[in-house]
Amino acid sequence: MRLSRYFLPILKENPKEAEIVSHRLMLRAGMIKQASAGIYSWLPLGYKVLRKIEAIVHEEQQRAGHMPMLMPTIQSAELWRESGRYDDYGEEMLRIKDRMDREMLYGPTNEELITDIFRSNITSYKDLPMTLYHIQWKFRDERRPRFGVMRGREFLMKDGYNFDLTKEDALHAYNRHLVTYLRTFERMGLQAIPMRADSGPIGGDDTHEFLVLAETGESEVFYDAAVTDLTFGDRQIDYDSVEDCAAVMEEFTSKYARTDETHDEALFNEVPEERRRSARGIEVGQIFYFGTKYSEPMKALVQGPDGKPVPVHMGSHGIGVSRLLGAIIEASHDENGIIWPASVAPFGAVIINMRVGDEGCDSWSEKAYNELTKAGVDPLLDDTDKGAGAKFATADLIGVPWQLVIGPRGVKSGEVELKNRKTGEKENMTLEAAINKISAGE
Amino acid sequence: MRLSRYFLPILKENPKEAEIVSHRLMLRAGMIKQASAGIYSWLPLGYKVLRKIEAIVHEEQQRAGHMPMLMPTIQSAELWRESGRYDDYGEEMLRIKDRMDREMLYGPTNEELITDIFRSNITSYKDLPMTLYHIQWKFRDERRPRFGVMRGREFLMKDGYNFDLTKEDALHAYNRHLVTYLRTFERMGLQAIPMRADSGPIGGDDTHEFLVLAETGESEVFYDAAVTDLTFGDRQIDYDSVEDCAAVMEEFTSKYARTDETHDEALFNEVPEERRRSARGIEVGQIFYFGTKYSEPMKALVQGPDGKPVPVHMGSHGIGVSRLLGAIIEASHDENGIIWPASVAPFGAVIINMRVGDEGCDSWSEKAYNELTKAGVDPLLDDTDKGAGAKFATADLIGVPWQLVIGPRGVKSGEVELKNRKTGEKENMTLEAAINKISAGE
Repeated sequence: MRLSRYFLPILKENPKEAEIVSHRLMLRAGMIKQASAGIYSWLPLGYKVLRKIEAIVHEEQQRAGHMPMLMPTIQSAELWRESGRYDDYGEEMLRIKDRMDREMLYGPTNEELITDIFRSNITSYKDLPMTLYHIQWKFRDERRPRFGVMRGREFLMKDGYNFDLTKEDALHAYNRHLVTYLRTFERMGLQAIPMRADSGPIGGDDTHEFLVLAETGESEVFYDAAVTDLTFGDRQIDYDSVEDCAAVMEEFTSKYARTDETHDEALFNEVPEERRRSARGIEVGQIFYFGTKYSEPMKALVQGPDGKPVPVHMGSHGIGVSRLLGAIIEASHDENGIIWPASVAPFGAVIINMRVGDEGCDSWSEKAYNELTKAGVDPLLDDTDKGAGAKFATADLIGVPWQLVIGPRGVKSGEVELKNRKTGEKENMTLEAAINKISAGE
Repeated sequence: MRLSRYFLPILKENPKEAEIVSHRLMLRAGMIKQASAGIYSWLPLGYKVLRKIEAIVHEEQQRAGHMPMLMPTIQSAELWRESGRYDDYGEEMLRIKDRMDREMLYGPTNEELITDIFRSNITSYKDLPMTLYHIQWKFRDERRPRFGVMRGREFLMKDGYNFDLTKEDALHAYNRHLVTYLRTFERMGLQAIPMRADSGPIGGDDTHEFLVLAETGESEVFYDAAVTDLTFGDRQIDYDSVEDCAAVMEEFTSKYARTDETHDEALFNEVPEERRRSARGIEVGQIFYFGTKYSEPMKALVQGPDGKPVPVHMGSHGIGVSRLLGAIIEASHDENGIIWPASVAPFGAVIINMRVGDEGCDSWSEKAYNELTKAGVDPLLDDTDKGAGAKFATADLIGVPWQLVIGPRGVKSGEVELKNRKTGEKENMTLEAAINKISAGE
């Protein structure tokens, strides 16, 4: 993409309304624009990152055999009356009357709708296990939306639902989701720690929240420092293996790690003192097992092996897709701007042409642009007539992993400057060497 | 994907509520399920096709330099008061009050919101031309939703907006969109004819609708038969060239082709009688030039080259993404089911294992599955224990381009049967030959 043709409305000033760094940086980098309180438009740069995060979520869900589908945003109130949640849900639910005066709502979650789809189509245990998920916009009418996409009203969420014959099978689905979530967050450069939590309006006893440690987090968390040493890495896992998934669950959740909702001072004190930590965390995902809470009232039954109808055991599993942009920025930035992990960076590199119009700079920049494009790096070429200071500031602000600086002096001496956004290291080398280094993703 | 693990709820009976073939087939093939009147859940098979259609739309828009972004579904009423459309829009607009009693609405289209984004960020003609688009769910509270996804209330639409300094520039954007639309629809195997139409609530004088001829179409259309001979094909086009885009516009719109809204009997009669046609058509896209209709009241001004502020010239351009599934099926099916063009088919081939449990059939099926997967064909393996008749019926119904039939007799004699869904041709050949033929996309 050529910056001269790209819509990237950079703000020089810190927007007053932004209280936390991710909100500030997303506004300054021209990623989002508020449309109404807690409702955002995603400008091209923000949209690009959103789609990359979404793609990782899709890949990891499908790797585990979970099936993508899509439920609508607007739901009928009827189903929510069946489960008993219509009145429970309170003012956070955006309630709507259509032209025929039917009671509708903008879905804050989808347990009822997916259970209805299930019961309309599945009648035998032979079709289980089954996990369906979608990535769709949700609405929760927060009283005080704030912190940009971290606590918006309209937000993008992945929510998945497992249907199993027995509690045991459903707990395997629970563990399997834990594994997919560990992989998902690690691929985005995040350490998200599963912590025992409270189930809230979803219901059920078993639930873990995934929290990214950050000063601006909304939750107070307590944990054994040893949990931060755990990484999933690139180990292979058989998602069908009950033992493999249970072993990962055991490894990642046996040490003390809880949110304030479930914090137990006595248990916490059993952790050796030097490893006890309290901090703040951002919730980026949550998994639930709630058994037959929905399948019983909504009569989602299957015929078991003995021919008798039984309600299915279910769980639901969410990832805050749009919120993840904020969480990643909170975890990865410096005073000059965002530092994107390569896996979700909007561009692979920015080529800074220091003197547009200079024959040498232009031709080297074009060469770099074409070759990096060919190598699949997806570069951004700064071909604007702005000054060097503004160009460097923009490149730092938008946080692309590599900055390739092409100036007239360097062209004469046969060199470019390659800067690594994360480490700040700058190195002079030939254009070819820089292109190779970026393409190799070193 | 293995069918034994896939959620594909095939219906044997024709659903009573479905009046037209695409609705019937989408329900029967387990692609969609109605959630409320005119609101659908997209089951895995339907979702897969939806995403393929969406991907083609994205590719063709970005090829022309149009920038993807995303606006929210819920908008504030304020902006619509500025443009004057809040009261005009009538009962089709889904109006909402949030918990703070603010007037909101579910966007039926986005001229106001995009104009607000533009005016907040762009102040100089130097940043023009600019075209932004998004693919987002819309809501129109139709009094009589029907025909499945063809006339739903919640539907997925691509809407793009161009911002230009002059009327001339904006008309180039109009022509450029026409070219992208011709390419888009042709890639989906559709002939969509641009016809002079009426602009309705969007406004402006210049507008063309793209119509797919089909008996079930909601519009009556009149055209010179010569327009159906035109194809865009794979010609290269420079989207920045005013002349190139204008030439395509001229070629595709100079012959008589109008919807009943703009039909002119006298002009029509100038077409040689043997070439005069009247038929029905399904609208799949529409392009508009409306000049300063929104930029003037909403004060979307840029400084021109002479330093004076002028309102920008705009147009908007829509494609009915979810509706396209219906349109493609209306145009491509037979009595046994859907016939997907390869570009949007949910799977590249279905492998029918005629005797699951038979060692030869199983091992050949696995081989075909692995090799076709490796070749990027994305096969569906029917590894269920259903009978031959049911398996063939399902394969025909879901309309995947190739059916690879592996039965015990064939395994013994070293042959499989390869059926082309579109032509119905069946051919016996070795497994390797069949895999090669499918992989080659012949």
